[in-house]
Amino acid sequence: MAHALALGRRGMGRTWPNPAVGCVIVNGGRVIGRGWTGDGGRPHAETEALAAAGAAAKGATAYVTLEPCAHHGQTPPCADALIAAGIARVVAPLEDSDPRVSGQGFARLRAAGVDVTTGVMAEEAARDHAGFFLRTEQGRPTVTLKLATSFDGRIATATGESRWITGPEARAVVHGLRASHDAVLVGAGTARADDPALTVRGWGRVPQPVRVVASRLLDLPLMGQLARTAREVPVWICHGPDAPAESRTAWEGLGARLIACPLSGRQLDARALLNSLGEAGLTRVFCEGGGTLAATLLAADLVDELVGFTAGLALGAEGQPSLGALGIDRLSEAPRFRLAETRAIGADVMHRWHRA
Amino acid sequence: MAHALALGRRGMGRTWPNPAVGCVIVNGGRVIGRGWTGDGGRPHAETEALAAAGAAAKGATAYVTLEPCAHHGQTPPCADALIAAGIARVVAPLEDSDPRVSGQGFARLRAAGVDVTTGVMAEEAARDHAGFFLRTEQGRPTVTLKLATSFDGRIATATGESRWITGPEARAVVHGLRASHDAVLVGAGTARADDPALTVRGWGRVPQPVRVVASRLLDLPLMGQLARTAREVPVWICHGPDAPAESRTAWEGLGARLIACPLSGRQLDARALLNSLGEAGLTRVFCEGGGTLAATLLAADLVDELVGFTAGLALGAEGQPSLGALGIDRLSEAPRFRLAETRAIGADVMHRWHRA
Repeated sequence: MAHALALGRRGMGRTWPNPAVGCVIVNGGRVIGRGWTGDGGRPHAETEALAAAGAAAKGATAYVTLEPCAHHGQTPPCADALIAAGIARVVAPLEDSDPRVSGQGFARLRAAGVDVTTGVMAEEAARDHAGFFLRTEQGRPTVTLKLATSFDGRIATATGESRWITGPEARAVVHGLRASHDAVLVGAGTARADDPALTVRGWGRVPQPVRVVASRLLDLPLMGQLARTAREVPVWICHGPDAPAESRTAWEGLGARLIACPLSGRQLDARALLNSLGEAGLTRVFCEGGGTLAATLLAADLVDELVGFTAGLALGAEGQPSLGALGIDRLSEAPRFRLAETRAIGADVMHRWHRA
Repeated sequence: MAHALALGRRGMGRTWPNPAVGCVIVNGGRVIGRGWTGDGGRPHAETEALAAAGAAAKGATAYVTLEPCAHHGQTPPCADALIAAGIARVVAPLEDSDPRVSGQGFARLRAAGVDVTTGVMAEEAARDHAGFFLRTEQGRPTVTLKLATSFDGRIATATGESRWITGPEARAVVHGLRASHDAVLVGAGTARADDPALTVRGWGRVPQPVRVVASRLLDLPLMGQLARTAREVPVWICHGPDAPAESRTAWEGLGARLIACPLSGRQLDARALLNSLGEAGLTRVFCEGGGTLAATLLAADLVDELVGFTAGLALGAEGQPSLGALGIDRLSEAPRFRLAETRAIGADVMHRWHRA
């Protein structure tokens, strides 16, 4: 199952709106087929693994990281394919939360005489599929928030210099994190100040995540990197109802997809924004700031995972804070996270946290 | 030698102004004597180890973490004691930088026919003895700066609530760090805002470090914890030339030791302050903030080691920064540190850095 989960993770960021599933088929103690969900969600992991196994699948055990589908979608049901191939046993961590599948895949397998075991490595699988489940259940993608700061929590000097606080190894990890998410999300301030490309670089030819900018007034530079490359790598802009019509026309002309969002006070409503991204199919979003957007997401309890990079330099109180105002007076009101991992990445410290 | 270094570390924070030395005597592959510098600097490690070894020291090898002393101080020279005991070989990491000893201990041993090997684990030993060496060479103790912050680098909410950002395990480690330093240093703002005891608690009966407060105007609460306990655990206050005479009298009456320091601008001169502490015998100082004092020390390049604790909560931009203003515009001007270690301590991340 650990191997199947590792295979499934290869699809992370590439299979949305479908889950990134892994499948390993074992017969007589030998791995005879491996598969994972293809880019865009097809082919399914089971299809690939069965194709590799061929006739040897008869009597074999299939380890699948999610309940095999039982409905006729764009591909025939995987449960039927497993039965047709003569699979004797299916091991899965948990049941699919998709109402079209839930329990039906396992029921169909059992009805055909296939032995079904669930609950194996359920916690790991639940974490891997968290974005898919959350979108199915609540309509929004999971949010991973990245903060790369000096050890006093600053993301730039007073004059705005921010390149680079962390080292090349940490930046390479960030590009890997981009690649494993469906989309990269930044606020308008960051898009204006840094003119970022937000693409995955240094990891070979990989599918690029959607680049999402939250900009209430659509006041983003029309000559910047995002504008110039919007036809090559998708750019989605979440804007408010008061974004000027001429800016909408301009960005649509550049190839961006515009997503209208309601306001909450003077800002875009963060929950509505994420629900719109969920409607558009995204399951895993990687937010890279800036401080205002990060604070808005934290204050609305919409951050599921936090990835911090701490560099060995001090910038002092004039430096720009990594988080905007949160309106917290008491420690008991602070959003809390549970440590998952800490390790050195090059000269910096990486620490990952999950919502407590 | 690793064992001798570990023994030597037992004395850290207890032997000042003397170095915390460890000694292991081995004969025929068996450890026959172990010793480390006693509280206050006596007895010496070699004396203890030789006493344990007794007659078996004849022909044995002594692993000592610093060059054995050759001068008659308050104890007879350790070099002579090793020779008298019949030690055949002395292994040491580096030479003592104390001009009264440097090279003379080894010379005396060699003259007596003892085989002397140096350079073993020199880097580790140099780090362990850094405070002793720095005081000998430059007159000041080493400074370890502790920063315990939220993951956005805040040490308190806007309303000043700071207890507790980190968990009990991290706080226990901080008490251990206090115990391994000669003194704990805080700024006047922290002394006023937190009314800290600055003692070592939860580690059994250990010698308490000196508690040092930097307070230019000596405007510290006369009813606080430091004032109440100044006769039990030393309180030293570094003040400016403009501290009112009545405050000096009051604090001296409470049992505090007053150390007059020159100003640099409107603040106490950090280098002069540390030199005064070095003159008073301190070799290792543990600074626990606040942000103003920490920034002053960093800006003056006086921080030798940095220990960060990052907690899994967000406090936002209104929270109090861990460092005051540093006056840095360019990243290239920022004080830089090299990562030594990162690991989880309870629910928090600890990261240690050395001056780059």
